[in-house]
Amino acid sequence: MKYEDLGFARIDHDRKKRRGFPEVVLCEGKTDEQAVKIIEALAKENDNILASRANSDLYKLAKKSIPELRYNELARMIILEKKSLPRVGSMLVLSAGTSDIPVVEEVVETASIMGNNVESINDVGVAGLHRLLDNMDYLKKAKVIVVVAGMDGALPSVVAGLVDKPVIAVPTSIGYGASFNGLAPLLTMLNSCSAGVGVVNIDNGFGAAYLASLINKIGE
Amino acid sequence: MKYEDLGFARIDHDRKKRRGFPEVVLCEGKTDEQAVKIIEALAKENDNILASRANSDLYKLAKKSIPELRYNELARMIILEKKSLPRVGSMLVLSAGTSDIPVVEEVVETASIMGNNVESINDVGVAGLHRLLDNMDYLKKAKVIVVVAGMDGALPSVVAGLVDKPVIAVPTSIGYGASFNGLAPLLTMLNSCSAGVGVVNIDNGFGAAYLASLINKIGE
Amino acid sequence: MKYEDLGFARIDHDRKKRRGFPEVVLCEGKTDEQAVKIIEALAKENDNILASRANSDLYKLAKKSIPELRYNELARMIILEKKSLPRVGSMLVLSAGTSDIPVVEEVVETASIMGNNVESINDVGVAGLHRLLDNMDYLKKAKVIVVVAGMDGALPSVVAGLVDKPVIAVPTSIGYGASFNGLAPLLTMLNSCSAGVGVVNIDNGFGAAYLASLINKIGE
Amino acid sequence: MKYEDLGFARIDHDRKKRRGFPEVVLCEGKTDEQAVKIIEALAKENDNILASRANSDLYKLAKKSIPELRYNELARMIILEKKSLPRVGSMLVLSAGTSDIPVVEEVVETASIMGNNVESINDVGVAGLHRLLDNMDYLKKAKVIVVVAGMDGALPSVVAGLVDKPVIAVPTSIGYGASFNGLAPLLTMLNSCSAGVGVVNIDNGFGAAYLASLINKIGE
Amino acid sequence: MKYEDLGFARIDHDRKKRRGFPEVVLCEGKTDEQAVKIIEALAKENDNILASRANSDLYKLAKKSIPELRYNELARMIILEKKSLPRVGSMLVLSAGTSDIPVVEEVVETASIMGNNVESINDVGVAGLHRLLDNMDYLKKAKVIVVVAGMDGALPSVVAGLVDKPVIAVPTSIGYGASFNGLAPLLTMLNSCSAGVGVVNIDNGFGAAYLASLINKIGE
Amino acid sequence: MKYEDLGFARIDHDRKKRRGFPEVVLCEGKTDEQAVKIIEALAKENDNILASRANSDLYKLAKKSIPELRYNELARMIILEKKSLPRVGSMLVLSAGTSDIPVVEEVVETASIMGNNVESINDVGVAGLHRLLDNMDYLKKAKVIVVVAGMDGALPSVVAGLVDKPVIAVPTSIGYGASFNGLAPLLTMLNSCSAGVGVVNIDNGFGAAYLASLINKIGE
Amino acid sequence: MKYEDLGFARIDHDRKKRRGFPEVVLCEGKTDEQAVKIIEALAKENDNILASRANSDLYKLAKKSIPELRYNELARMIILEKKSLPRVGSMLVLSAGTSDIPVVEEVVETASIMGNNVESINDVGVAGLHRLLDNMDYLKKAKVIVVVAGMDGALPSVVAGLVDKPVIAVPTSIGYGASFNGLAPLLTMLNSCSAGVGVVNIDNGFGAAYLASLINKIGE
Amino acid sequence: MKYEDLGFARIDHDRKKRRGFPEVVLCEGKTDEQAVKIIEALAKENDNILASRANSDLYKLAKKSIPELRYNELARMIILEKKSLPRVGSMLVLSAGTSDIPVVEEVVETASIMGNNVESINDVGVAGLHRLLDNMDYLKKAKVIVVVAGMDGALPSVVAGLVDKPVIAVPTSIGYGASFNGLAPLLTMLNSCSAGVGVVNIDNGFGAAYLASLINKIGE
Repeated sequence: MKYEDLGFARIDHDRKKRRGFPEVVLCEGKTDEQAVKIIEALAKENDNILASRANSDLYKLAKKSIPELRYNELARMIILEKKSLPRVGSMLVLSAGTSDIPVVEEVVETASIMGNNVESINDVGVAGLHRLLDNMDYLKKAKVIVVVAGMDGALPSVVAGLVDKPVIAVPTSIGYGASFNGLAPLLTMLNSCSAGVGVVNIDNGFGAAYLASLINKIGE
Repeated sequence: MKYEDLGFARIDHDRKKRRGFPEVVLCEGKTDEQAVKIIEALAKENDNILASRANSDLYKLAKKSIPELRYNELARMIILEKKSLPRVGSMLVLSAGTSDIPVVEEVVETASIMGNNVESINDVGVAGLHRLLDNMDYLKKAKVIVVVAGMDGALPSVVAGLVDKPVIAVPTSIGYGASFNGLAPLLTMLNSCSAGVGVVNIDNGFGAAYLASLINKIGE
Repeated sequence: MKYEDLGFARIDHDRKKRRGFPEVVLCEGKTDEQAVKIIEALAKENDNILASRANSDLYKLAKKSIPELRYNELARMIILEKKSLPRVGSMLVLSAGTSDIPVVEEVVETASIMGNNVESINDVGVAGLHRLLDNMDYLKKAKVIVVVAGMDGALPSVVAGLVDKPVIAVPTSIGYGASFNGLAPLLTMLNSCSAGVGVVNIDNGFGAAYLASLINKIGE
Repeated sequence: MKYEDLGFARIDHDRKKRRGFPEVVLCEGKTDEQAVKIIEALAKENDNILASRANSDLYKLAKKSIPELRYNELARMIILEKKSLPRVGSMLVLSAGTSDIPVVEEVVETASIMGNNVESINDVGVAGLHRLLDNMDYLKKAKVIVVVAGMDGALPSVVAGLVDKPVIAVPTSIGYGASFNGLAPLLTMLNSCSAGVGVVNIDNGFGAAYLASLINKIGE
Repeated sequence: MKYEDLGFARIDHDRKKRRGFPEVVLCEGKTDEQAVKIIEALAKENDNILASRANSDLYKLAKKSIPELRYNELARMIILEKKSLPRVGSMLVLSAGTSDIPVVEEVVETASIMGNNVESINDVGVAGLHRLLDNMDYLKKAKVIVVVAGMDGALPSVVAGLVDKPVIAVPTSIGYGASFNGLAPLLTMLNSCSAGVGVVNIDNGFGAAYLASLINKIGE
Repeated sequence: MKYEDLGFARIDHDRKKRRGFPEVVLCEGKTDEQAVKIIEALAKENDNILASRANSDLYKLAKKSIPELRYNELARMIILEKKSLPRVGSMLVLSAGTSDIPVVEEVVETASIMGNNVESINDVGVAGLHRLLDNMDYLKKAKVIVVVAGMDGALPSVVAGLVDKPVIAVPTSIGYGASFNGLAPLLTMLNSCSAGVGVVNIDNGFGAAYLASLINKIGE
Repeated sequence: MKYEDLGFARIDHDRKKRRGFPEVVLCEGKTDEQAVKIIEALAKENDNILASRANSDLYKLAKKSIPELRYNELARMIILEKKSLPRVGSMLVLSAGTSDIPVVEEVVETASIMGNNVESINDVGVAGLHRLLDNMDYLKKAKVIVVVAGMDGALPSVVAGLVDKPVIAVPTSIGYGASFNGLAPLLTMLNSCSAGVGVVNIDNGFGAAYLASLINKIGE
Repeated sequence: MKYEDLGFARIDHDRKKRRGFPEVVLCEGKTDEQAVKIIEALAKENDNILASRANSDLYKLAKKSIPELRYNELARMIILEKKSLPRVGSMLVLSAGTSDIPVVEEVVETASIMGNNVESINDVGVAGLHRLLDNMDYLKKAKVIVVVAGMDGALPSVVAGLVDKPVIAVPTSIGYGASFNGLAPLLTMLNSCSAGVGVVNIDNGFGAAYLASLINKIGE
């Protein structure tokens, strides 16, 4: 199996073949120089690449050598999409509140470049149930639903109780005090009284979209 | 102010005057002998008394000297009610699941002896929202609502979003794994995205009823 | 039921009817642009609005389009109060120390705009009991008491032991070391040996005032 | 929507229509009498039912009124399967060690009665990688993979790195000391360096199977 | 320096000289045979010895070879006191509730055999402040005060605010739910808003008495 | 009892009489204006005052109205000492490492102004035992010993094993990773295998000195 | 690579070649039937085998088919040693207290069967330093030292400060209260102020011995 | 035994003789002045010294008086190496990802100056197993292996399962959300299902190298 050794990184060029999409770069924790070199190495071998948790300085640096790069500031993502994959299936992203939107954006960008039809409905938290119930049509036509929520993290339980499709729950670090940086909604989601919920790491929009994409592409 | 010194306990006979109801005995952690003596001392001065977290052995022992005692096994409560207080106001108790019923029973017994009209509706958790929404009439006519829930603890957020009255939330230790003995629903409830929720200790049905009673009696 | 879809937010205009006060904006976690647009949308439909955890930059931005806005820097709140509600009932706010005052201010602003008579007494922590006992008259005449305390969080237990009215306890993140950002007083309050205490999230002055207001308005 | 009110429980008979399978009974926390009555109520309306975390005493009691019941002791499940659903798709269950088998059994029973083809391969933990790599053919032909692991919980990361299909990870409470009853593998799985992993509660074989079943049935 | 090697234990016979009292045996975690042999070895060299967290079976076994032993069941302590030390100074032990008495007994036994005048006042928790304030004379005449409390653990803060002498605080595991086996009162006591409080381990009556004895003997 | 109400603070002027030293100002969490006003109010009634966790800006502000103020930058303390109390007794402060010195300084400043003879010996942690054992003479002549340590927090156990006097242990937040901001040494100290150790909050040099001062003054 | 598939277990017969010793059976969490079958399968292929965390019932059951088995009750280990490996090198095991001996026994049994010279010195905790310092000769002649300690877990820091050889630290669950089942000594050891310490899981005597054996055999 | 007293520090000049390498300076938590004086004191007595967690300002300051100093920015280490020790043995350092490189650098610098042959292979985490398996030759020829990993921390379990040599595991704080600053990989490593793993503190590259050096030098 093939990989490229940069010394500080070992680019797993086999991953696209093995897992269906090239390695995604988690920029946090890497120096800007390291991140840019990894992006360049990936760009040489792939049409579409994605880098997450990237700040705008890194984007500007990377854009110098790869002008086609695009940046989504809310999602903190750098995107190269030279040959769009056809969008298939039907993924729905729900958020409990406006503050969860950066994570929603990370889900949408990831799902899009990986070739999924994706729609998002924001601010439908359980404090005003009618906002959710008004959108039952969207819930019914989706193949897979990603639910993003902080604070009490109650939305995935309610959503999973209404539908017969997989729900991927993303706790967010939105909130304060006894939210303990997302621990509260994480525990809520793991204890969901409705079955059919899979949970990913706090603020991990990328991971939720990746899993939802694997599900959404079944049968397409 | 008046109290009675038993050596191992100082019965706060002033409490009824100061707080409206005699001291309630938390039996857990006391020897059976201690608990019985405290119950006897209270029974000498009061018509109505309540002992919580009592097992049936203790009940049998106490009943020997005070035959009027009654025992609610699910609630693990010993009750003496020689002169019932008139029931006033309107307290509603909701539970998310059948397993929460022991705590519900503790709420109902406490609320009753303290002189509140109280009704309970069980098993209306958010996994099947229609079970709750079907009971909106009950929610609307209550002065105060106690919500008992384990696992994801999502019910109080949903309830508080539907009404304009105080909601007292009781997390229960029902569940397993990442419920961490009730930590999960406790955090959920403290982070409720709906305002108007006050939280008490895990499994503390007595405390919830006491607070709800103080609220329910306002204006009566 | 009515709401307004801004894309990033779904303004729950039905909330005033359903819950008695319009949606309150939690600014933290939202971009300034989002927060201002939500404030503007609410201001079009309501006379009185409240935005919490807002910094002064956001206030200045919002004031450009809504000059009637007022800012309470300690409470970090933006307030619009075009038609004051009549002040009713009697809410008392106690704080254990001077450092708890920002949370006290959040309680007072929220309670005021929601139409409650509210008074605060600061720095009456249990290290000097006489400061509290000197104010028994205030405690006795209140319908509901909000107690704000950090560090050991012992004040609500003491207060609830003295009165026969609901006590809403707010732990604060004041303190250091084993306070663990408010975890210590939170646990203290949940374990209060005096019944009649409902607890809200750490630093959640708004939530405490909202719940206390629901209680204070009973019978008015 | 339809449900049956037993007083202590509200049987959600609508759930089969809404979610594809009747309500599953979590027996833990219910009295035997409650559990049996719920099982009876479900059995009147459904051909296939499932009760989890049931001990053998409860099974014997329930079998008196419903002789067709079957009991899987390792899985602690009571099963009624009068009209088997056709088995479709391809679900694979992997366990890290022999001690994880009770959870594996819960997955297999749940998946079977819900109509899934399911196979399990046990004891393929990362301490002896070749045991896993020898089974790559099974991994490749599965539509969805459930991975059950305690202690270090490392197996899902390794599995997800090898395939392009959804991985549902179940941490178990197997282990001791710093496993903290399953907290360690739970955190490991949430932090998986391979994307495509959804996590459920500790020891929640039922929940993993339910989610995997929803995925496995897509396109069938 | 002198010690005796039993293979499984190294009796620190020098300790009495170095620290003023012979080694105290913590029985928990030792086999009965080990504990008895250690007690015997100590009894050969000392007039007064103390063994903590001992059950009655161990006591009966040890009494066979050392008939002078005495057992305090509540304190779970085995005591040998052949030559009583003169009681000096003035140590006061306060407990918040009846359930804390086993720890109080451990304090009293330890303090007594180490030669301290010691008195205890039970059940003076902050839910009824007058019970404490009525005993101000005892607080004033003590040289050192040990305060034992579970649940909210608020009593040491209140006591230390009233006096100018050292307060040793012992959190107890009494309580339930968010007490988390004594974590709540432990944190409360560490965050005491009154200075002058030193904290020992949860339920560690022995340790509190040992420290209080060192203090109480100063100047005697 | 006497106190002065500043609105935002209630100066407990009775404290000096009741507890032997005027209220000490914890500046953290107060605005500079509040802190200065409290310092001024105290300075009007007392010769000696102390303010902790103060930054140099606050010091400069306060010095404008009270020129006699002194500032200890390492200890972050503002000191007014117009009439030095006579230094009595013998307090010893030990630190495990150089990084613990800010806390040592807080101990020394507090102990000095409260009228104690105090000496400190730094950097005698258990990684080089001989550094401690070389100072046995100092340990032997002290009446009370304060031990300051971060990281493993092992020093108090070793010290208490060597002497027959009270040891006050102060965990510090020095360290990283699994120190969890001082949680590790805090737990170590609470579990000390040597009796005679009282623990205060993480980094709480003031509290340790206050308690040690109460002890040190016994018999003087 | 070779393994044997028992259905519920996959015996890694390659492990002896790959890692130097056959798979060790962790009995906890396995049914007795499973554990016996695994022991039998290993016994067919190996002269020496080891099973940990085994109770005496399991031992009796296994002994029926393999009469050469031996049982160490304190260590809870089943041992088969048909061809003893030559004992090489020099491993020293130190324990802080008598209660740590079960873990010491697990270390000694494991180290012995794996072919190491191993000696243990018990009850040399830091509460009586001279007990440790008296044994410096043993410390100096060892190649590797295993240190077993509960409660404050301070011993490894002290030992590592005295020698220039690897120290393997094993926290034990001995203790109570704020030991939190071994969390306290675990954190202490991870934060050791002396370098040269590697930590294993709480109570994991087997793991410590395995690692120490790998080290002890270097150069033999 | 010899040490030098600087007042704020006690330089343990005996350590080189006792433990084989002079004291290493942990700069974090010390003032720049303190750190420089300690470095100067060590440089007077030793040819080779090491200071960890040092920022570049401190380096510049120290270089003024000791021009031979070198700085490794990634490792945050200041190095003086006037007489290189001969490099012996064979230490291998593996990292799971690029973000772990700062810790790898700390390992490599420490190991080098202490006289070890050391090689590192980066970015061989379990998401792409072939990257690790391709380097089996390096694993086989090493005497000791240090494994650095954040997030799921799964790499040490996999590595230890492949070899028969000691593995020192270093969890890193790389990651987000439920990594809880390195708690997740720390727990994973302590629960490794492969024996032969010793764990050090989060991000403690120095400690890992120190321990690995002690092992690597055995027999050299």
